Amino acid sequence: MLNLTEPTLLLDKQKCLANIQAMADKAQRNNVSFRPHFKTHQSHEVGRWFRAVGVEKIAVSSIKMAEYFAEDGWDDITVAFPVNVHEKTRLNRLTEKIRLNLLVVSPETVDQLGKEILNPVNLFIEIDTGYHRTGISPENTAMINTILNRVEIYPHITFNGFLIHDGHSYKIRNDKNAILNIQQHSTTIAKQLKQTYSAQYPHLIVSVGDTPTCSIAESFTRVDEIRPGNFVFYDYTQHNIGSCSLNQIAVAMVCPVVATYPERNEIVVHGGGVHFSKDSLSLPGSITSFGKVVRLTGNGWSTEETGMYIKSLSQEHGIVHAEKETAGKIKPGDWLGVLPIHSCLTADVMKCYTTLEGEVVTMMG
Amino acid sequence: MLNLTEPTLLLDKQKCLANIQAMADKAQRNNVSFRPHFKTHQSHEVGRWFRAVGVEKIAVSSIKMAEYFAEDGWDDITVAFPVNVHEKTRLNRLTEKIRLNLLVVSPETVDQLGKEILNPVNLFIEIDTGYHRTGISPENTAMINTILNRVEIYPHITFNGFLIHDGHSYKIRNDKNAILNIQQHSTTIAKQLKQTYSAQYPHLIVSVGDTPTCSIAESFTRVDEIRPGNFVFYDYTQHNIGSCSLNQIAVAMVCPVVATYPERNEIVVHGGGVHFSKDSLSLPGSITSFGKVVRLTGNGWSTEETGMYIKSLSQEHGIVHAEKETAGKIKPGDWLGVLPIHSCLTADVMKCYTTLEGEVVTMMG
Repeated sequence: MLNLTEPTLLLDKQKCLANIQAMADKAQRNNVSFRPHFKTHQSHEVGRWFRAVGVEKIAVSSIKMAEYFAEDGWDDITVAFPVNVHEKTRLNRLTEKIRLNLLVVSPETVDQLGKEILNPVNLFIEIDTGYHRTGISPENTAMINTILNRVEIYPHITFNGFLIHDGHSYKIRNDKNAILNIQQHSTTIAKQLKQTYSAQYPHLIVSVGDTPTCSIAESFTRVDEIRPGNFVFYDYTQHNIGSCSLNQIAVAMVCPVVATYPERNEIVVHGGGVHFSKDSLSLPGSITSFGKVVRLTGNGWSTEETGMYIKSLSQEHGIVHAEKETAGKIKPGDWLGVLPIHSCLTADVMKCYTTLEGEVVTMMG
Repeated sequence: MLNLTEPTLLLDKQKCLANIQAMADKAQRNNVSFRPHFKTHQSHEVGRWFRAVGVEKIAVSSIKMAEYFAEDGWDDITVAFPVNVHEKTRLNRLTEKIRLNLLVVSPETVDQLGKEILNPVNLFIEIDTGYHRTGISPENTAMINTILNRVEIYPHITFNGFLIHDGHSYKIRNDKNAILNIQQHSTTIAKQLKQTYSAQYPHLIVSVGDTPTCSIAESFTRVDEIRPGNFVFYDYTQHNIGSCSLNQIAVAMVCPVVATYPERNEIVVHGGGVHFSKDSLSLPGSITSFGKVVRLTGNGWSTEETGMYIKSLSQEHGIVHAEKETAGKIKPGDWLGVLPIHSCLTADVMKCYTTLEGEVVTMMG
């Protein structure tokens, strides 16, 4: 094992590369563009692993993240979040250098962009296929038409197509058919949108993307681009959705044990909200898990069942549930691995990875 | 209002200074040492505001944080977290320069420290008064004696006293008597511990500290030191516990509105898990709140009721509940303030503050 001294986010690079390759292959087999979402890893170096398999276009979730990846040579970036026009100065700087695709959900925003943005910019309209977070209902063609009419006013704004995020797939647990039904519903909507708008916009594309549908579906029709992000690492939530095996999860927090309480069926590790963030998962048996505990091996971690999970987190403490016998064998100073509930947020708070080979992989600051 | 462009953590310095002064005055009136916990603000500059009212000793929650504050001249630091002896190299560096007080909960750790740490170090034994996170039951005098016997073996390790964290006070909602009962219970335990151990250790101290008891109690007896942390900013959880008024909360996230859905009673802001972290609060009426939404004023924020709260967070999106009429009046590009559920974790992910005067206050990187 590495010579660690503090809570550390381990990255199994081989698993990560395999996840990247599998999704790139799937996109190629289906003849759809692959525009991975980089909000999960937020790392120049991990981004280069995508470039090595031919990826040229990416999605991010903020202007700041677009700037960070533009610095590393990415020049076709979709900010898959409704645009905040207060960031006009940064948007103007970015659009001088790269092809930037922005997301709108209201006609007012198109006008604000039209007046504030000086360089060519491409717009997606976000369509809400059932997640009900942001986006316009596909039946609301009046609103879609209003937005398209505003876009026509501004010669430097180009309509790029429709963007869909089937985030409701995250609520499914181990039911591949339910995930495929979500994908089928979006495919139907994509077909309708193309029938309605392709005559006027022959180059419009439909971009979809969420890790559950992109991982579970084998075929993609009527859509032009996939945008999954989390699959680069996966996590324990994705495993419970059915998107991945435990062995595909490419990151694990490694935490030192600081106290053991076999009589309470508990162990305490240094690893809290500032290391994991605080997403949790409801599991059968009224269990709320903040992370699945695994055993470390000489060369990473084992996915064999340990019966241990993180039952609560405070700022620096992680309280691990462990059967009395298991807890009794573990001592302060031992190390435990933890498969995170939500790898995007765990990476975001940890701010760097350590590979199994001991290399430190930096992230956006 | 300031010229903001992105989600920003505002700090009302006057409220913060008043919170600091009030707690310093309370400690002085009670003739107890004031050792504020700096894990909440994690900022050199905010630390200096404490120094300005005479504070000379602090608590932190990690070795890394002790290093950060030692750099700014703090030379008496308690790491109020069970010591992780893998960090021996950093502990040896720190103990060369400052008075370091560490926390132990097991005899093995004393032996590991005795062998690995080269310089004088002070130890607290953590006592569990009912929170059941870490610490030794006050009835388990056998274990306390075992630890003390181990301490005697190592001439460079000095027993400093007992440390108590009444974290179960965080589960109380608006019941000052329940908080005072928790404090009374700890006071009784402090008295017993002193009766048992003062003959052998005449200089031992009892250190207590959590924001609810330190905010609500007016008198402190039998204890020597208070260690609250969160009170520097307070937050919406502390308000619901009864520790503070809404007007004492000194930080608010400011988020741009990016979409409005009056028909769903919802507004979407740029402000997600990467800005707030993901602590939530269960409120009457089966409401789960990830933040209390307030209106911004020309000079900060108003605490007048808006009926709005954050009902869910994803990585970058905050979904605000708002009555249809309220939501209908708010437009993309407007700004909303949010009193955080847990200011410690919000500060930890935001990594800097902006004062109402526009000054940027940096934090530990």
